[in-house]
Amino acid sequence: MSRLVCGVDLGGTKISTGIVTEDGKVLNSVKIPTLAQEGPDAVIGRIVKSIEDVLAMSNLKVSDLYGIGIGSPGPLDADKGVIMGAVNLPGWDYIPLVDRIKEKLNIDNVKLDNDANAAAYGEYLFGVGKGIRNFLYITISTGIGGGVVTDGKILHGANSNAAEIGHITINFDGPKCNCGNYGCFEAYASGTGLARLANEEVNKGAESMMKELAGDGPIKAEHVFESARKGDALASKLIDNEGFYLGVGLANLMNLYNPELIAIGGGVSKQLDMFYDKMMETAKKKALRPTFEICKVVPAELGDNIGVLGAAAIAFNL
Amino acid sequence: MSRLVCGVDLGGTKISTGIVTEDGKVLNSVKIPTLAQEGPDAVIGRIVKSIEDVLAMSNLKVSDLYGIGIGSPGPLDADKGVIMGAVNLPGWDYIPLVDRIKEKLNIDNVKLDNDANAAAYGEYLFGVGKGIRNFLYITISTGIGGGVVTDGKILHGANSNAAEIGHITINFDGPKCNCGNYGCFEAYASGTGLARLANEEVNKGAESMMKELAGDGPIKAEHVFESARKGDALASKLIDNEGFYLGVGLANLMNLYNPELIAIGGGVSKQLDMFYDKMMETAKKKALRPTFEICKVVPAELGDNIGVLGAAAIAFNL
Repeated sequence: MSRLVCGVDLGGTKISTGIVTEDGKVLNSVKIPTLAQEGPDAVIGRIVKSIEDVLAMSNLKVSDLYGIGIGSPGPLDADKGVIMGAVNLPGWDYIPLVDRIKEKLNIDNVKLDNDANAAAYGEYLFGVGKGIRNFLYITISTGIGGGVVTDGKILHGANSNAAEIGHITINFDGPKCNCGNYGCFEAYASGTGLARLANEEVNKGAESMMKELAGDGPIKAEHVFESARKGDALASKLIDNEGFYLGVGLANLMNLYNPELIAIGGGVSKQLDMFYDKMMETAKKKALRPTFEICKVVPAELGDNIGVLGAAAIAFNL
Repeated sequence: MSRLVCGVDLGGTKISTGIVTEDGKVLNSVKIPTLAQEGPDAVIGRIVKSIEDVLAMSNLKVSDLYGIGIGSPGPLDADKGVIMGAVNLPGWDYIPLVDRIKEKLNIDNVKLDNDANAAAYGEYLFGVGKGIRNFLYITISTGIGGGVVTDGKILHGANSNAAEIGHITINFDGPKCNCGNYGCFEAYASGTGLARLANEEVNKGAESMMKELAGDGPIKAEHVFESARKGDALASKLIDNEGFYLGVGLANLMNLYNPELIAIGGGVSKQLDMFYDKMMETAKKKALRPTFEICKVVPAELGDNIGVLGAAAIAFNL
């Protein structure tokens, strides 16, 4: 029988847990609220319960598992299996999650990595990056994150914080980012960045359909895309700029990691057709020729299952 | 007896070749002109002759060598051992240098890498990066180059073009770089970038000691440093900006590679005391806290021998 792994996608609002086969099929899965405010002990209890539940649903015991993989928001130390002050998990300050799970379930192979690295490794083992030994996964949603597979392994760096791609400066004269720096890739090209730029324009008095779509609230990224699809001039200009900013970031990543493939996931990537051409045209102008020419850029493939599959992937990687 | 390697530093103007011990001592070395205009065959002949000469000086035969390492300007394919259109080697279009050397000297272990990667690996095996498994070497001279050691191995990427750190965009509204892109790290912070910014200020009519030092020619980076050391206000401002630009670049590299140590070499690094504080203060503001806090930034250690030692290091790395 092929090996089975339990993948746990620990998020700030929900925990998704599933049994995953070696070829990337999710046999059974559950999704429960994290209830992060109850603190680490309660959440760890809920993780363990979710694992026991999917095992029961699948008529399996812990001893049938090859391992357990956990994807979590960072910062964390993947080597030590410790979560260190994750922004979305209040009170999780140096929590040895891997040791706690090993102890509670009596299993040796438990692995932890940040959710972006896990997603990258999931796409590498099961998705569009299968077999591509130098591979980059980018997620564009409220923020921008990523994971790098280099020569078949996740690039961790000295304390598991490599590939913080959202926070590279692409314009040192640019707007302030949530991280405190100015002109980060994320400040321009994330969904939040796009919405901010849209609100700035409209607040300056520009006319646009985006205002009506937003109603009384602020304009969101989805309003920009919807308006652009309907031909709104300002929204179209903003989407064009989005493609430019993404192209600048991609060119930097091509020059630094020299991947053979970049897969783009996350909410904003569902609108990839709207900015793909501008993004690639910009990257082509900005990257060095050999790094651009070797690199394809495609949508990520695993979709909504990427959290569980990514978490499982890191447990298959021994 | 400990293993011996021959390191060949192939440059656009000179070839340096030396016998190197496992602990990084250069036993004997020669330096000859490249005469690149004579074409690949003649230059390969000169490389072979230089290897035979240092072997004779050391009373060694080829069969006494553990291997031969060659550092060369890129682009090149390290896996295949092929130089592909290196800018400083006219006519070197897809030259299988490794196979040619293997054949002429009848030796199996011949390795090729670009000079920045070789320097990084040299500092990792023999210099300030010894034993630091996540390590970054940067050279700041006329251009900016670098090499990344990640988990003890050189980061090559898909076609040996990773770590082209000079050509990451740090300001997409910035000045044009030699590579065709705008606002590259190199366009701001290399010796050439610093000189360009100095000449722009002086051509706008600014008063500065740099003009006298330059005489009839354009201002060079060394004139900026000399004037700043003598208290010239404009030159001091330019050096302060140099520290800022380097800090922006370092923060990006910390966030992307998460090294434990960055070593800075190249001509401009000899003036490191002039801009170190501003550079670190800027990097601290811009990098994410965990990537900044784990990372020391120090001068490179191998000095003028880095070419030969770096080339030797890549042959020791089997």
